[in-house]
Amino acid sequence: MTVDLFLDGVPARQRSAALYEQLHTAIAHGRFAAGDRLPTTRSLADELGIARSTIATVYARLVAEGHALGRVGDGTFVGPTTATVRAASPVPAPFARAVRQTGRSVADLESPPRGWLADLRSGRPDPALFPLTDWRQSVTSTLHLPPPGYDHPAGLPELRRAIAAWIKRSRGVDATADHVLVTAGAQGAFDLCAHTIVGPDDAVAVEDPGYRLARASFAARGARIVAVPVDRDGIVVDHIPAHARVIVVTPSHQAPTGALLSPDRRRQLLQRAGELDAIVIEDDYDTEYRYVDRPLEPLHRLDTSGRTVYVGSFSKTISPSLRLGFLVAPPRVVDALADARRVVDAQPPHLTQAALAAFITNGAFERHLRRTRRAYRERRDLLVARLAGMADDGSISAFAPCQAGLHTTVSLPDDIDAEDLARRLHVAGVAIATTADDQLDNRPSDLVIGFGLADGNRLTVALDLISATLSTLR
Amino acid sequence: MTVDLFLDGVPARQRSAALYEQLHTAIAHGRFAAGDRLPTTRSLADELGIARSTIATVYARLVAEGHALGRVGDGTFVGPTTATVRAASPVPAPFARAVRQTGRSVADLESPPRGWLADLRSGRPDPALFPLTDWRQSVTSTLHLPPPGYDHPAGLPELRRAIAAWIKRSRGVDATADHVLVTAGAQGAFDLCAHTIVGPDDAVAVEDPGYRLARASFAARGARIVAVPVDRDGIVVDHIPAHARVIVVTPSHQAPTGALLSPDRRRQLLQRAGELDAIVIEDDYDTEYRYVDRPLEPLHRLDTSGRTVYVGSFSKTISPSLRLGFLVAPPRVVDALADARRVVDAQPPHLTQAALAAFITNGAFERHLRRTRRAYRERRDLLVARLAGMADDGSISAFAPCQAGLHTTVSLPDDIDAEDLARRLHVAGVAIATTADDQLDNRPSDLVIGFGLADGNRLTVALDLISATLSTLR
Repeated sequence: MTVDLFLDGVPARQRSAALYEQLHTAIAHGRFAAGDRLPTTRSLADELGIARSTIATVYARLVAEGHALGRVGDGTFVGPTTATVRAASPVPAPFARAVRQTGRSVADLESPPRGWLADLRSGRPDPALFPLTDWRQSVTSTLHLPPPGYDHPAGLPELRRAIAAWIKRSRGVDATADHVLVTAGAQGAFDLCAHTIVGPDDAVAVEDPGYRLARASFAARGARIVAVPVDRDGIVVDHIPAHARVIVVTPSHQAPTGALLSPDRRRQLLQRAGELDAIVIEDDYDTEYRYVDRPLEPLHRLDTSGRTVYVGSFSKTISPSLRLGFLVAPPRVVDALADARRVVDAQPPHLTQAALAAFITNGAFERHLRRTRRAYRERRDLLVARLAGMADDGSISAFAPCQAGLHTTVSLPDDIDAEDLARRLHVAGVAIATTADDQLDNRPSDLVIGFGLADGNRLTVALDLISATLSTLR
Repeated sequence: MTVDLFLDGVPARQRSAALYEQLHTAIAHGRFAAGDRLPTTRSLADELGIARSTIATVYARLVAEGHALGRVGDGTFVGPTTATVRAASPVPAPFARAVRQTGRSVADLESPPRGWLADLRSGRPDPALFPLTDWRQSVTSTLHLPPPGYDHPAGLPELRRAIAAWIKRSRGVDATADHVLVTAGAQGAFDLCAHTIVGPDDAVAVEDPGYRLARASFAARGARIVAVPVDRDGIVVDHIPAHARVIVVTPSHQAPTGALLSPDRRRQLLQRAGELDAIVIEDDYDTEYRYVDRPLEPLHRLDTSGRTVYVGSFSKTISPSLRLGFLVAPPRVVDALADARRVVDAQPPHLTQAALAAFITNGAFERHLRRTRRAYRERRDLLVARLAGMADDGSISAFAPCQAGLHTTVSLPDDIDAEDLARRLHVAGVAIATTADDQLDNRPSDLVIGFGLADGNRLTVALDLISATLSTLR
């Protein structure tokens, strides 16, 4: 073959995406002829020193997207489309590094095409449950005055007040408006903390598996990422290394495993953080949906030393389209973060902030939560009942009890590869992810089933298909 | 005195803010007693090795804010208020670095109190000219459907299309939707470029004086900032150093001097960038307001090599509260930037994007620009006529001709200190800035007169006051 592929220095978890990107680029730029045979997975695995299954996944994706053709028992061939729009748009030399840095393709991130059977991707609330009427009213109530112009980078005072009152009531987080900084979702909070709190080469301890994009925020600002294992009780505190300056955790609903950080572990974690004089970032991204027992007290409330930054989001409760979340920290820290924010995006947009402040204070938010809690609980109960049956008959080996949030994880029997299953489901019309992207090691990954975008009917269809696919694989 | 002040390592331009912050903190935390005399400006100037005028400015501000009392001929004393909310909110140890990093106080950035005579701060459009009815209609037209959830990180497709069509028509920038990335104002574009295009320790050439917050974005991501002087024809291309990887310029209306980059310099700049294989970032922040001659072709249009990133904003035309701007780059670069954005703020908010797309495509934006151009032209003509008179009678030494935008700069006679004048005006009720914050050297600064927030009446009152103050200072 005439195309060089480079995977040296690419982290294990990004190799699949990098290989896809390089092959896709080579095909799009016409560096293969239509009908050229791609190397066998075995020869490429030997050449690049990566798993055959990784290469098979990439080939399957190229086939699924029409860039390549698979012939059973005969190999994989470059498809007839060799020139694309992108080929007409070369990358000017000075930008080469920027484009090379990108391990993933933006195409990965786009919404699935219409007509899917079911979308089981996690972390997404149902647009069908969006509070259309109340939201419209909250937005229009803000439109009678011109917006103020440049404003406080920590956010609109009435929204900071509304959030402070809300988290005090709902989570017992002790905060006034001065403690609250409005961010562009939880992601904006991570980026701001990474920008301000974390110095270059500071060690940031993250859960493994753990939310990929939180980790990526800190890595992008030059932090050293340290993986700490997670078990059924959440992060294993004993494994937090002594040089950790920041510890990022999801105590209410571990992302992605779904574990609840136990009361003992909470105390241990705060004690350990105190010994290390480390900052704790508590990502409470979907705590509003809780199905079993009462929620545990957040670390922020248990922490008497003021070292915990509490992060929340409206992406799971209302919509990610809002791009509104918040963090809670000591007022002087909020001031410093707000100042740093001036050079990132200056301040949050006024319109959505004003609308959200109205939506919370006029009671629509709590009404919306009551309604969506009922809807998601039904889906969760259906899912748990089906998974219990599948665990009984051995088609899955275990599943997280789904005490909270909008997803759960499923462990598969040893002879089933989660990536392979997800790929098969994808081809059959079910969008589904595994824990692979969130893992820093090479342990077998679990399946992640989200039910934010799938109502009872879709969930039933998808679970039928998962059962059927699993039985063909045994 | 019992309080140690540290200014070592603080850049010259930030010393005033840092000194203010340290004194203010010491007073707020009760480390002075009410009535304590602050050191004389002379003794503190000797001790800290900075100008007496800097210290006098800080003392004046502490007096203006009620933290200190000034007695003519007798010195400055700590005021009766020694405990504030902030004193009750100490900074937990692990956050100390974050708080220390902040040279400026957030208080600097807040809107002035009500009741000012005039606000001549630059870069702010008039909320009184906000297109309330058309905007309300554009917003409400988007509220009949739920927002889509996670979406393309480069922005809403219809907004990318609308922006591409608009800048093609208005500026001759050759772009399709694929070339456009929607950002959180121009600031969001700088931050994203800093994140993705610029490597650690890369040299970024900036104009001196030049827009402080653009420079700060690149510095925050670890770039080395290199100052390039500006004259009447804009950036002095011969001074761009050979190791510059990125060149940030404001060709249409140099920020802050107001110079227009001449056609010759445009050609020289692109040639120089080509020789260095450098990226050019063209910040076209307020090009929509042009009062004299036709606008020159943007660098992006003159550049045949694809090395120019064009940055625009809706902050000056509609409102900074919108937090919407854009950049134009080759599609593959846009993809890479969009991917990098996932870890900053995921994507722009849907509501404001959808409303702006409607506002542009339904013609309201052009209507709004016609109306505001007339209003700002009247203010500009009034300002230029008054400044011409003041130049004639010698009370100012020169002023930029204000061919475009919402501000102009005024050079003062040698014996007048712009900072001192601005402070006196501030006390008298006029908010006004100088070029000091945008300068990287210690040359005398110019006065910056913005007319976005001051209508004809306010502008007249403020100019009367400036004239009167200048004559008392001669």
